[in-house]
Amino acid sequence: MSGAISPLQKARSAYQPKLPLSLKNGSFLVKKGEVILPPVDRDRIKTLFPNTFGQPILTFEAGETNLSNHAIRVGVVLSGGQAPGGHNVIAGLFDALRTANSDNKLFGFLKGPIGIVKGNFVEITSEIIDAYRNTGGFDMIMSGRDKIESAEDLKSCLDNTATMDLNGLVVVGGDDSNTNAAMLAEYLKSNDSKCCVVGVPKTIDGDMRNEQIEMSFGFDTACKTYSEVIGNICRDATSAIKYWHFVRLMGRAASHVTLECGLSTHANITLISEEIRSKGMTLAEVADGIVDTVIARAAKGRNYGIVLIPEGLLEFIPELKSMIDELATMLGDKDTLETVRSFDTHEERTQYLSSMFSALSAKAYASLPEDTQAVLLNIDSHGNPPLSQVETEKLLIDLVKQRIASAKKQGKTAAKFTALSHFVGYEGRCAAPSNFDADYCYSLGYTAAQVVRAGFTGYTVSVKNLNQPASEWVAMATPVTSMLNIERRLGKDVPVIKKALVELDGKPFKMYAQNREKWAVEDDYVYPGPIQYFGPSEVCDVTPITLQLERG
Amino acid sequence: MSGAISPLQKARSAYQPKLPLSLKNGSFLVKKGEVILPPVDRDRIKTLFPNTFGQPILTFEAGETNLSNHAIRVGVVLSGGQAPGGHNVIAGLFDALRTANSDNKLFGFLKGPIGIVKGNFVEITSEIIDAYRNTGGFDMIMSGRDKIESAEDLKSCLDNTATMDLNGLVVVGGDDSNTNAAMLAEYLKSNDSKCCVVGVPKTIDGDMRNEQIEMSFGFDTACKTYSEVIGNICRDATSAIKYWHFVRLMGRAASHVTLECGLSTHANITLISEEIRSKGMTLAEVADGIVDTVIARAAKGRNYGIVLIPEGLLEFIPELKSMIDELATMLGDKDTLETVRSFDTHEERTQYLSSMFSALSAKAYASLPEDTQAVLLNIDSHGNPPLSQVETEKLLIDLVKQRIASAKKQGKTAAKFTALSHFVGYEGRCAAPSNFDADYCYSLGYTAAQVVRAGFTGYTVSVKNLNQPASEWVAMATPVTSMLNIERRLGKDVPVIKKALVELDGKPFKMYAQNREKWAVEDDYVYPGPIQYFGPSEVCDVTPITLQLERG
Repeated sequence: MSGAISPLQKARSAYQPKLPLSLKNGSFLVKKGEVILPPVDRDRIKTLFPNTFGQPILTFEAGETNLSNHAIRVGVVLSGGQAPGGHNVIAGLFDALRTANSDNKLFGFLKGPIGIVKGNFVEITSEIIDAYRNTGGFDMIMSGRDKIESAEDLKSCLDNTATMDLNGLVVVGGDDSNTNAAMLAEYLKSNDSKCCVVGVPKTIDGDMRNEQIEMSFGFDTACKTYSEVIGNICRDATSAIKYWHFVRLMGRAASHVTLECGLSTHANITLISEEIRSKGMTLAEVADGIVDTVIARAAKGRNYGIVLIPEGLLEFIPELKSMIDELATMLGDKDTLETVRSFDTHEERTQYLSSMFSALSAKAYASLPEDTQAVLLNIDSHGNPPLSQVETEKLLIDLVKQRIASAKKQGKTAAKFTALSHFVGYEGRCAAPSNFDADYCYSLGYTAAQVVRAGFTGYTVSVKNLNQPASEWVAMATPVTSMLNIERRLGKDVPVIKKALVELDGKPFKMYAQNREKWAVEDDYVYPGPIQYFGPSEVCDVTPITLQLERG
Repeated sequence: MSGAISPLQKARSAYQPKLPLSLKNGSFLVKKGEVILPPVDRDRIKTLFPNTFGQPILTFEAGETNLSNHAIRVGVVLSGGQAPGGHNVIAGLFDALRTANSDNKLFGFLKGPIGIVKGNFVEITSEIIDAYRNTGGFDMIMSGRDKIESAEDLKSCLDNTATMDLNGLVVVGGDDSNTNAAMLAEYLKSNDSKCCVVGVPKTIDGDMRNEQIEMSFGFDTACKTYSEVIGNICRDATSAIKYWHFVRLMGRAASHVTLECGLSTHANITLISEEIRSKGMTLAEVADGIVDTVIARAAKGRNYGIVLIPEGLLEFIPELKSMIDELATMLGDKDTLETVRSFDTHEERTQYLSSMFSALSAKAYASLPEDTQAVLLNIDSHGNPPLSQVETEKLLIDLVKQRIASAKKQGKTAAKFTALSHFVGYEGRCAAPSNFDADYCYSLGYTAAQVVRAGFTGYTVSVKNLNQPASEWVAMATPVTSMLNIERRLGKDVPVIKKALVELDGKPFKMYAQNREKWAVEDDYVYPGPIQYFGPSEVCDVTPITLQLERG
């Protein structure tokens, strides 16, 4: 815990997050709804989850309570990347437990799931909670990316939760962590443990989303923080009138963050990986598209602009994906790997590999600037080409620069192209939660406590009607098994929660598609500014645009 | 002007900036104070500025006005890099002019000083002003970095201001722009122009500061925006517990921004260029200092941390400065330049140059990673080694990484060092002004209008008592000639306003020096969070820490 506290953090610690009306009034009952099954792969999932398959949806409604008030002990763990509001999940959990019975105990496992395996935890007291209310970060108990998968680790969890006499374990994480929570729930139940496992949907990427989960927590605050920064850069562009800014944003598996920021700021170009894959675009075509806009803006005297780029872009470009897969296969062969490593110069490596590539992959490889080729050949000990280390924003700048130079030589444009690159990511994952995320997370934690009190396991909590005022929110829980399907990962069939990608026929993307021509050539920027906590509601309580469009 | 407006911008447009009491009440007089002379180089400056030398300080006090209300016409220009609050300077100017006489006119010169030379301007109407109140950026009339120096340009300004029948020209800029304004004032006066020239002290760098100018505008908002981002990164560090973050910040000539951000966030290491130069430190010593902290934190189980780096660091390291100067001299010779360019490989270039360096410079050059050496040899058409293109944060990461690896081999530490680099700059220059900057800028513009109304030329306006509530602020104006000294730049003696560097015996640096050991090894981070506009005063109206310490 930090020694010094900023004036904002101090003022903000007094904020009392809102709850759905049903939970707020203290007297509520848990109601079983319809039994919900996975849409596909039912039999295989049932076989994997015999004890937790086929459970009903749960909702919480105002009324005479049907929950017992006997004292319980609950553990909580933060899993995976940080997202704004994690501390409020814990605060909601804590307050709900203490409200139900002042003898209830909450324990925080340290540094992620490994804390359960090793039995590393702290008791979470009201002093600790009060120091972290409405703060960003996961630093109260820290996070980690370990998974509980081996028989040995599962056994440790069984033993440790038994030793601690836990009635429940709340796992705060994304799609993989909730899947892992479901596996742990099944394992514990099959071993007659009383410990219920309940997941909370977390990820700034916004890709854990479905009919029950309208939005993962943290997305709103992270996108608002990124949009503040991007809006300021847009303002800089129209003031300095001489720079193109290429901004890479977090979101490897899906482009929700980039789309939300594009809708929030009206950046000139917002690249959406899902569209690029769907159109089967090449890297050259992506660069050409940007060049068209650079030239069109230059014709209007605007030698500046903003391009938003999702972190995972390259993996969505079919030719690059194939080339990378080929490269990985080639380097998977020990002899080839050793030969490549034996060369002294980049040129030798490239020549050798090019001869082994398919024609299409050779072309895709050749289309990359030498810097990028070199990064890809900087193979790790497993022989994986590190695509994630490519700075896509710089790669695109290089490609656009070459094309503009050549178009100028041919007299096709008088565009001046000077570009600056940015990566915006770490500034948003641990921002203090917006009012929306503060309320939402607190409600999620509060709901998770009720699921444990009611003795259900293998659930993910959620809150519906998020676009309405909090009083109209509906707290609920969905059996994780109903969200699973079977996917092939690293050569194995495994149950996973399907990642929600940007839907090209969804309203958020359509809104972008309808406006993109105007936003590309005009200066139609919006400057969202920093997150506000104390001002008028139309400033402080705005929900994400994606959510407004999808559920508005 | 953008088509769409964010909820915050809309709400914020209604904010009425505060004014010093004397100006607020509408009836005030301009009072001549003591005649103020430059501390050094008096005779030379007097010779250069015969018409504007030896003028008195001006203050504005409540009382029966001694200013005429005859209709006047005023131009305004934004010069140099953007700083939050520029639009409020123009709004203050506009409101002051219209309050004095509704027939007064304000014109904005477009794209910086070149707009005066070319006679490119717009009339600033109330519709324009209302669209830009309390917004960030310079996009209302844009900015530029041209200087008015040639006889031809000066003559154009004389002609254009005469054609436009201007009574005054307000130049919003930093030290160089205010110097340039003084030269224009002198020139116009010597040619019997009625057009007064008045400067407004702008720069996020905070290096235009002296007894009269407590703080340049924009510093507060930019540093608060950077500190928001840095605080969030600190939170990420303590949550993920596996990354060192190296953050480069704007401020080439002075380290005020870095120091302010260090004081605001208690980052583990805040490098101050002025201290490094004063101690004559080598680059290796700077890296060693960071390594010591990395090892000390690792011993406490903390394999994470934050290092703040001022943009201009390398130029303050004596050995590098000498080496760069030598290199520039060497490459200034055409034959040498051609020879260097004729080599195919970096190694050949390096070998050739190393033989020509002094022993010390050869060592300094050799101490740089190959990447950095290559950047330095990427010489421009004038033969200047582009030191500013070196990504200092990445350079330091490389040096620290090497040292930690070698210390590990020697068994001296078990530190894990994984580092991420950031450059934080463009996100702050055009942020919407904090309450402080909104009020301060509006007051500066309001004051500049009074100086023009009173018919004084060659002045820079300022506001004193900035740490007190705005009602106690004192509006004033200082003759620019009193702030000048003679410096040698590009081989010529020129009059310039001396840049204010971080003073090592000043209170802000001392505050850092007293706390740095604790901040280095402990997690004492402060998370300032985003700028707030509507909350409690202790959150929304905090002045920069530098100002509090210097004038508190």
